[in-house]
Amino acid sequence: MTPFLLKYFSRRAPMVDATLKTLMRPKPGQPETIRRAMSYSLFAGGKRLRPILTIAAAELCGLGARRVLKAAAAVEMIHTYSLIHDDLPAMDDDDLRRGRPTNHKVFGEAMAILAGDGLLTYAFEVAADNAKLLKLPSAQSLDLIQTLARGAGTQGMVAGQVADLEAEDWKAKNHGFDPAKALRSIHERKTAALIAASLESGAILAQAGKSKRAALSRYGQLIGLAFQIADDVLDVVGDKKKLGKSGSDRQNNKLTYASLYGVEKAQSQAAALIASAHKTISPLFGAKARVLNELADHIVQRDR
Amino acid sequence: MTPFLLKYFSRRAPMVDATLKTLMRPKPGQPETIRRAMSYSLFAGGKRLRPILTIAAAELCGLGARRVLKAAAAVEMIHTYSLIHDDLPAMDDDDLRRGRPTNHKVFGEAMAILAGDGLLTYAFEVAADNAKLLKLPSAQSLDLIQTLARGAGTQGMVAGQVADLEAEDWKAKNHGFDPAKALRSIHERKTAALIAASLESGAILAQAGKSKRAALSRYGQLIGLAFQIADDVLDVVGDKKKLGKSGSDRQNNKLTYASLYGVEKAQSQAAALIASAHKTISPLFGAKARVLNELADHIVQRDR
Repeated sequence: MTPFLLKYFSRRAPMVDATLKTLMRPKPGQPETIRRAMSYSLFAGGKRLRPILTIAAAELCGLGARRVLKAAAAVEMIHTYSLIHDDLPAMDDDDLRRGRPTNHKVFGEAMAILAGDGLLTYAFEVAADNAKLLKLPSAQSLDLIQTLARGAGTQGMVAGQVADLEAEDWKAKNHGFDPAKALRSIHERKTAALIAASLESGAILAQAGKSKRAALSRYGQLIGLAFQIADDVLDVVGDKKKLGKSGSDRQNNKLTYASLYGVEKAQSQAAALIASAHKTISPLFGAKARVLNELADHIVQRDR
Repeated sequence: MTPFLLKYFSRRAPMVDATLKTLMRPKPGQPETIRRAMSYSLFAGGKRLRPILTIAAAELCGLGARRVLKAAAAVEMIHTYSLIHDDLPAMDDDDLRRGRPTNHKVFGEAMAILAGDGLLTYAFEVAADNAKLLKLPSAQSLDLIQTLARGAGTQGMVAGQVADLEAEDWKAKNHGFDPAKALRSIHERKTAALIAASLESGAILAQAGKSKRAALSRYGQLIGLAFQIADDVLDVVGDKKKLGKSGSDRQNNKLTYASLYGVEKAQSQAAALIASAHKTISPLFGAKARVLNELADHIVQRDR
């Protein structure tokens, strides 16, 4: 990360963490076990990329970070739920996540399923709370809920996960199956859709106009796809320990950018997406776009 | 069912079904597999109790059935997601539901988990759509979302499922564990919370006043608990075929009203709850309460 970006993150990530901590305090009727299971994965050392994108989008549209922290937390909850469910034995069957045992390894499969369900459900309650706090008009309030639901649902993140599972043995597929198209379509939904929704949520809360909202969403789609390509590449070339993952993509013989195109071509595709992302936001936000531009660059340069 | 109640259901259940059918049409970016998996469980012969409670509550508060069909569908989606996840091998491990193979038996565990996730997420999108259609003020729109989220989440339905899992070996528990209290607390959350939220959703959409809303929610809590007691009793005395369940409660040595109190005492407890339910709504709604009163009676008298 550049010093500028590092400073940006280091000021906002603790705000997200503090909000999550407050939101995850014990509540009447809430079993302590599930609170612990949800917290375990929420506070597992995530970089808070998605919530910071919500904050950055809001700030670019004139609304301060403190005004969107609950929506930012909601986005992180949805992301975390997806990681917990993706790691389950019936799905990717991963034992490690960020160098720590996965949720189901610690709390058991049943509790991990419920912790994911609980986080997803709570995300909508918390996002609604943010709209209430800002006294957002009804149309925008409901837009916020629907933007999150669409990004996370069966036309977004869940769709991507389904398509990913179905492509697992893509090499055995009949002709007519286009792996390049399938791969892009998987990641536009599995990773990019929620990243785009994170940015759009910030824009909605700031009551931004249509063009700014669309540009931020498009920027999210582009960096989301680049992020996934970079992830695929890291899965092949990255040091396992640094990454804290067990390299299950290769074990499962999955369709990935690295396996389909090779590392170098995959990297140049990611770079092209990042260039498009710059072009999408710079005209609308000028110098204020710096944080999102540097963040886009960082996504393809990071080593973990 | 009484002829009156039968007529009430037979006019409204098809409206719920038609709404669900429309909502479940293929959508861009939505894999056909998950659409089929979600539809399989949504159209598995459920009685549509919860959505009809949403409709009944709205009608009692002066809003027509057609105006709340999407919220009613959302409630059924949340209920269906919970059944799919509850049946998973890691949870209750049930092979049959309403006489048909459970979702994971047909579509596999991974798809069943995702079908549940997809239904839960879609429910919020659809509920938000209902608020948009009615041009509901922001506060009520967000109340609707939060009422559903709280009923379904870790202080409601998910909490009940967690508590239920944890009580599985209750007989082995240390002293200090109060089985009667635990049992009530499980079912107030596992079953009654979403039933109460279903009714409250109808009241919110009808912009009912506080006292009506509270009474309908309380009625839901009471019949929800009675419903679960009746279910426990049916699990013991009911004909397996008629019920279409494989009787896993007994196999798992679960804490149930029947196992704790015996059938007769459990039945009289359910009857007392139903009497309270009558008292809760009759003063506020007068003759219009008939449908909810008959429905309450039906819950403890049904044989499947």
